[in-house]
Amino acid sequence: MSKIWANSGDSHLVEPEDLFTQALPAAVAARMPRSEKDPDGRWETLHIDGKQYRRRLAGGNLVDADGKSVDERAPGANDKELRLVDLDQEGVWGEVVYPSIGIWTSSIEDPVLLRAGCRAINDWAIEYQQSSPRYVCTASIPLLEVADAVAEIERAAGLGYRCAFFPVAVPAPELGWNREAWDPVWAALEETGMVLGFHIGTEPIDADSTTGLYFRGPGGALMNYVETTYGGQRAVTKMIAGGVFDRFPGLKVLVSEGGATWGPFVADRLDEAYRQHGVAVRPPLRRLPSEYLYEHVYASFQHDRSAPMAMTAMGWRNVLWGSDYPHLEGTFGHTQKTLHELFDDVDPESRTRITVGAFAELFPHVPPAPESEY
Amino acid sequence: MSKIWANSGDSHLVEPEDLFTQALPAAVAARMPRSEKDPDGRWETLHIDGKQYRRRLAGGNLVDADGKSVDERAPGANDKELRLVDLDQEGVWGEVVYPSIGIWTSSIEDPVLLRAGCRAINDWAIEYQQSSPRYVCTASIPLLEVADAVAEIERAAGLGYRCAFFPVAVPAPELGWNREAWDPVWAALEETGMVLGFHIGTEPIDADSTTGLYFRGPGGALMNYVETTYGGQRAVTKMIAGGVFDRFPGLKVLVSEGGATWGPFVADRLDEAYRQHGVAVRPPLRRLPSEYLYEHVYASFQHDRSAPMAMTAMGWRNVLWGSDYPHLEGTFGHTQKTLHELFDDVDPESRTRITVGAFAELFPHVPPAPESEY
Repeated sequence: MSKIWANSGDSHLVEPEDLFTQALPAAVAARMPRSEKDPDGRWETLHIDGKQYRRRLAGGNLVDADGKSVDERAPGANDKELRLVDLDQEGVWGEVVYPSIGIWTSSIEDPVLLRAGCRAINDWAIEYQQSSPRYVCTASIPLLEVADAVAEIERAAGLGYRCAFFPVAVPAPELGWNREAWDPVWAALEETGMVLGFHIGTEPIDADSTTGLYFRGPGGALMNYVETTYGGQRAVTKMIAGGVFDRFPGLKVLVSEGGATWGPFVADRLDEAYRQHGVAVRPPLRRLPSEYLYEHVYASFQHDRSAPMAMTAMGWRNVLWGSDYPHLEGTFGHTQKTLHELFDDVDPESRTRITVGAFAELFPHVPPAPESEY
Repeated sequence: MSKIWANSGDSHLVEPEDLFTQALPAAVAARMPRSEKDPDGRWETLHIDGKQYRRRLAGGNLVDADGKSVDERAPGANDKELRLVDLDQEGVWGEVVYPSIGIWTSSIEDPVLLRAGCRAINDWAIEYQQSSPRYVCTASIPLLEVADAVAEIERAAGLGYRCAFFPVAVPAPELGWNREAWDPVWAALEETGMVLGFHIGTEPIDADSTTGLYFRGPGGALMNYVETTYGGQRAVTKMIAGGVFDRFPGLKVLVSEGGATWGPFVADRLDEAYRQHGVAVRPPLRRLPSEYLYEHVYASFQHDRSAPMAMTAMGWRNVLWGSDYPHLEGTFGHTQKTLHELFDDVDPESRTRITVGAFAELFPHVPPAPESEY
């Protein structure tokens, strides 16, 4: 089978267990997120600043069709060099790399602790990024205080980050992404040229809840998986509706792992609301909502056979493929099969745009991917 | 401009104010849903069995670009004969017609009261349906007791109903549509050949909440409008994930007013979950989830320019157009302009399928629409 090379808009790293104890004073490190796995490996308890959270292990909660966990199927995923061997084998070139423990920083409630934690994670991950120009690591941003967020965005940009990881929602419901209180944050991202990377499934959770389990009963695994996509759609809906892209026209947003076919759908739905409910819409926008989505928003998918048509038939050029490596929802072990199934019947211009071009537009500093062979 | 005729998968009636007092004993009628409008006409208070609910008026909460409310722009919408004049003028042939006050029956908590209310609404609406073969009215079903639901489905089918209106969720969270407790209801729909019609925006509400307002602040109107679509997607996701279509292969489901482009997207997302999370999926399904969605689920949209491509590019043949007449979210007054914008560049077979064919498949008893002129 001929080889297709693709960039990934969605990949992951797991931070080393001793990251916080190595980087921070013992008293501070002890309050940082720490995972404790159940003996059966299916659940973990996260200890965060004196509170405990239970969750199924993200990606590691399951095994693949061969009975292998994430650690077993991709043992090199967390090694700077072995990871490149996996990527070369799969045909993945550049990667947007999200944190793992860093996702849980959104459950920290003390701004001082959060600031220290994000700095420690970012100081570690930038070394990973520096080991290969193919890694686009994402900076964790302390979002409890706007001033802290701005400061860490600027510091991270200075370190070399090109993408900031944001959860799809913050713990304070009065601080949705539609609120003007975030304007200094958008300004900092725009000025530093950082892409805003929303990863789905990162809604804040209550200490006594079990994250990711919205539904129970028959079909629960399927229902909960579908539900995870809506948070990413909401995040960009809020930014568009709040007029963020009128005020910050240089801002680019990537929604990772939530699929891509929803883009034209949400764009059309926003336009219908804007025209039919016009008298109730505030603030007024300079252009139709769909224009902001088509221009400023990008999204990555793994297997969705309809996703290429969001570009080829519906005209949304910001569709990215993503591997979700090394997670079980991703394509590791069958990347080439998936890429061929998705793209063999797609015209070359669209195929190039989705597999490598949209990513290259967001991260032009990454060297070009090798030519695909057909 | 040449005339395009289309069937509508989403239209509305308003029941007369004296429906319950005419049909029921005074003590029962007094507990039924009753609307009281604010003097400014923007909000209403619904009195239901001693409780009060505040809401913005559905469709009537707003005015169109000419400053007209629903009552002012389509004064004939509730008159059996004048309505046909409007439909002829707009180029709308057959219609799935949802109730208005009937939607609020899902807030009744007393099964005996609910049973009486649904019977009264259905006895009234069937007369409306009988006035023209173009009206496909939807039967309101008492869902507090499974046995009541089954009995009213069978009674409604006997009266001549071909479609049952269901809210996208019931008040009891332990009774999601994925639960086997609903099997007698699915069986009754399948045996009677009734189409199940979910109308979006019908989630049950708490007595002290304001329905339809999920978000506040800048952009709230747009954000809330997008949010309403997800309930319809969840409803069919639950049915597919729960294996309903394996057990009831004759069942057909229509999701009205929520758009249609989400169909292929949800199908792909379900397939990804089914394959990648396979070991956690219960019950196992006989086919891939997408096959049930593509075969058993239909959806209607009004203006979405991407919706025809859900069929032409993504292969989902169950896309229906809908007018949402007489609501402000709909196309009244610009139906022909909208139909031409949507379909002038669509191949004839797909255009026919979306404008009239999918509807005719669900409701073959409706006489065929006049030929469109191009």
